[in-house]
Amino acid sequence: MKSKAAKPRNAFYAQSGGVTAVINASACGVIEEARKHKGKIGKVYAGRDGIIGALTEDLIDTSRESAANIRQLMHTPGGAFGSCRYKLKSLEESRAQYERLMEVFKAHDIGYFFYNGGNDSMDTAWKVSQISGQLGYPVTCVGVPKTVDNDLALTDNCPGFGSVAKYVATSIREAGLDVASMARTSTKVFVLEVMGRHAGWITAACGLASEQEGDSPHILLLPEIRFDEAKFLAKVEATVKKYGYCAIAVSEGLQRADGKFLSETGLTDAFGHAQLGGVAPVIANLVKEKLNYKYHWAVADYLQRAARHIASKTDLEQSYAVGREAVRYALAGKNAVMAAIKRTSQTPYRWKIEPVPLAKVANKEKMMPRDFISKDGFHITPACRSYLGPLIIGEAPQPYRNGLPAFARLKNVPVPKKLALSFTIK
Amino acid sequence: MKSKAAKPRNAFYAQSGGVTAVINASACGVIEEARKHKGKIGKVYAGRDGIIGALTEDLIDTSRESAANIRQLMHTPGGAFGSCRYKLKSLEESRAQYERLMEVFKAHDIGYFFYNGGNDSMDTAWKVSQISGQLGYPVTCVGVPKTVDNDLALTDNCPGFGSVAKYVATSIREAGLDVASMARTSTKVFVLEVMGRHAGWITAACGLASEQEGDSPHILLLPEIRFDEAKFLAKVEATVKKYGYCAIAVSEGLQRADGKFLSETGLTDAFGHAQLGGVAPVIANLVKEKLNYKYHWAVADYLQRAARHIASKTDLEQSYAVGREAVRYALAGKNAVMAAIKRTSQTPYRWKIEPVPLAKVANKEKMMPRDFISKDGFHITPACRSYLGPLIIGEAPQPYRNGLPAFARLKNVPVPKKLALSFTIK
Repeated sequence: MKSKAAKPRNAFYAQSGGVTAVINASACGVIEEARKHKGKIGKVYAGRDGIIGALTEDLIDTSRESAANIRQLMHTPGGAFGSCRYKLKSLEESRAQYERLMEVFKAHDIGYFFYNGGNDSMDTAWKVSQISGQLGYPVTCVGVPKTVDNDLALTDNCPGFGSVAKYVATSIREAGLDVASMARTSTKVFVLEVMGRHAGWITAACGLASEQEGDSPHILLLPEIRFDEAKFLAKVEATVKKYGYCAIAVSEGLQRADGKFLSETGLTDAFGHAQLGGVAPVIANLVKEKLNYKYHWAVADYLQRAARHIASKTDLEQSYAVGREAVRYALAGKNAVMAAIKRTSQTPYRWKIEPVPLAKVANKEKMMPRDFISKDGFHITPACRSYLGPLIIGEAPQPYRNGLPAFARLKNVPVPKKLALSFTIK
Repeated sequence: MKSKAAKPRNAFYAQSGGVTAVINASACGVIEEARKHKGKIGKVYAGRDGIIGALTEDLIDTSRESAANIRQLMHTPGGAFGSCRYKLKSLEESRAQYERLMEVFKAHDIGYFFYNGGNDSMDTAWKVSQISGQLGYPVTCVGVPKTVDNDLALTDNCPGFGSVAKYVATSIREAGLDVASMARTSTKVFVLEVMGRHAGWITAACGLASEQEGDSPHILLLPEIRFDEAKFLAKVEATVKKYGYCAIAVSEGLQRADGKFLSETGLTDAFGHAQLGGVAPVIANLVKEKLNYKYHWAVADYLQRAARHIASKTDLEQSYAVGREAVRYALAGKNAVMAAIKRTSQTPYRWKIEPVPLAKVANKEKMMPRDFISKDGFHITPACRSYLGPLIIGEAPQPYRNGLPAFARLKNVPVPKKLALSFTIK
């Protein structure tokens, strides 16, 4: 009896949560690697708008994209297939959704699930790995890490973070030179607000710009350290007296002693409604009111996590590698793992990708160690510099057209639906 | 009788007003060109913190910098010698200051005055050209244009603007991809606030990013068009319905129908003090309140005018050229002129530098023509695109060290003072 080669099962890939400047490099890694193993892996279907695309059977057939288009994902920020903020809860609470997921996977012969996201997504991937077996339709689940917050456990750092780090450090170095030149008669204090509500990794990365005595930024306001107004104002005043100006990086998640976010500081609009967001103007106004220094403030917001034009080459390469390795793990039968980054050498900096159990990554948050923060709480330590430094190394040039970054424009061709029932997302 | 060659007179160069990503390229142009004509021009002294440095006899001897250091000014943002916001008033009101200026110039044998700034500075340069003759110490005055606002008269465009234009258009294109990927379940509206209080050139430049139907940004809120809330909200809603999301660029100078700035919209802090600045959160909150769309907002502030890392090559070359030509004009005996940019061909784009009378530039403001703004007031026209397009062309790579832009660190050696009396700046 001749054994007939089984038709290779397809793969499902989805992007999840806040996107980054380099998440599409992970998509590129997954798709290019899968294409190298056509005998073992069928088509790569992407979820339109993340996991929602699986639930609604709204799949994108990436095999319809040319190799050149897929390669362009390397320099295209945002989520090329769409992402979503949508968390599948526990198996008990969301059983119908997990069952629907399996139904869709079965209908499209999907045997591999690559989930590209943060903590929540690793949790989901892990649950899918468990329930798929229970429901009699085993799917190999591999997590592909991504988060600008750099807070995933069991990986040295998170794809997406290095590029934000490079952007914010570059920005506050550049703006620092601006303020320094204006300080004698005009702006003396500059405040840059950056992301990272819980962990101060991005704020800490701003500190990389300060390499010599007096360099910008002079003060970091980390979410790990409760805001002490008097101590802060004294530091600002001393800095302006010493260097003529003061550049400050502040985390959106900065909290007062009572645990309240500074961004919820009682600002109201003309109608008495609370104003939402923005800790930078709060800090700036405080400086103006108490010290009477002229100020400027900036809020980087999405610019920081979309800035592919100043991406870190290291980050880009790691983002690609976690996608590529995820496919290799799946083909090697490794299930319920995440492709993690391991630092194998500090000097020279070297890294490799290794599988870690999803169960151990899920729902954990890696905070900044206290010894990464200076004693006074306003800056980073040499240990932090050593950790962060390599992550922003290298530039990653991209093509420009008409003076602007040229990005991939995928066709995103839908896979014909096979299921009779539709599924509604609340 | 043998004629003895006169010792060449020195030059004074000062940066004025808000700095840019490429103002130091103009400084480089002035200094490098002057060094080529050592028989005709002595040392180039720079004013520490702009014109204030002349008044206080706080001069920097640029001859103490190596050629390599001066070259590094090509990729160093901010004002390398310091700038200031300090306007000399009319001769009648500020006679003592003009006289002091002449006294300092005389003491240091300064025969050339290169003033690198915007409208006010061109006015000052013109006045100095007039009074120096009256006071019997003729100084050749040449204006070197600079302003991110792009509002100087008699020059096709202003050095510094092209780089801001490239930065803001790049940023809103990148952020647009981010919002597009999040829109299904999260952020639907993104607002980017940019500079340009009176003229909408920078806001208009954001529009360059939108090259195809549906591209970000969808709406520009220009200071030339009074804000019409109902019309704006209708446009946002229609855009979200059509494309799933809406990206908006707004000028800091956006005004209501009654001429009040939107940024002064009655926001108060917990103590009842008016909150200063930020039109982006005002627009974002309005969208949230009236349309209930989730939003994000960013304020680029100094980041946009300091972003040498994404400078326009065209802008960089023009910034250098106006500095270089200013020196040539001075050596050719052209007095009371500004080095202006003239567009000599649109396709292919070509430009040259030509002298224009300072008297005709001073205190004028070049606004956006109405035919550069679409009929509905929310975008730019093809005519505007043709004008703006060439100004952002070309990238201008810079050196990186430890993953961050490496900048010039000048010694800024002071010129020994010669005058007995000091001069106090209020």
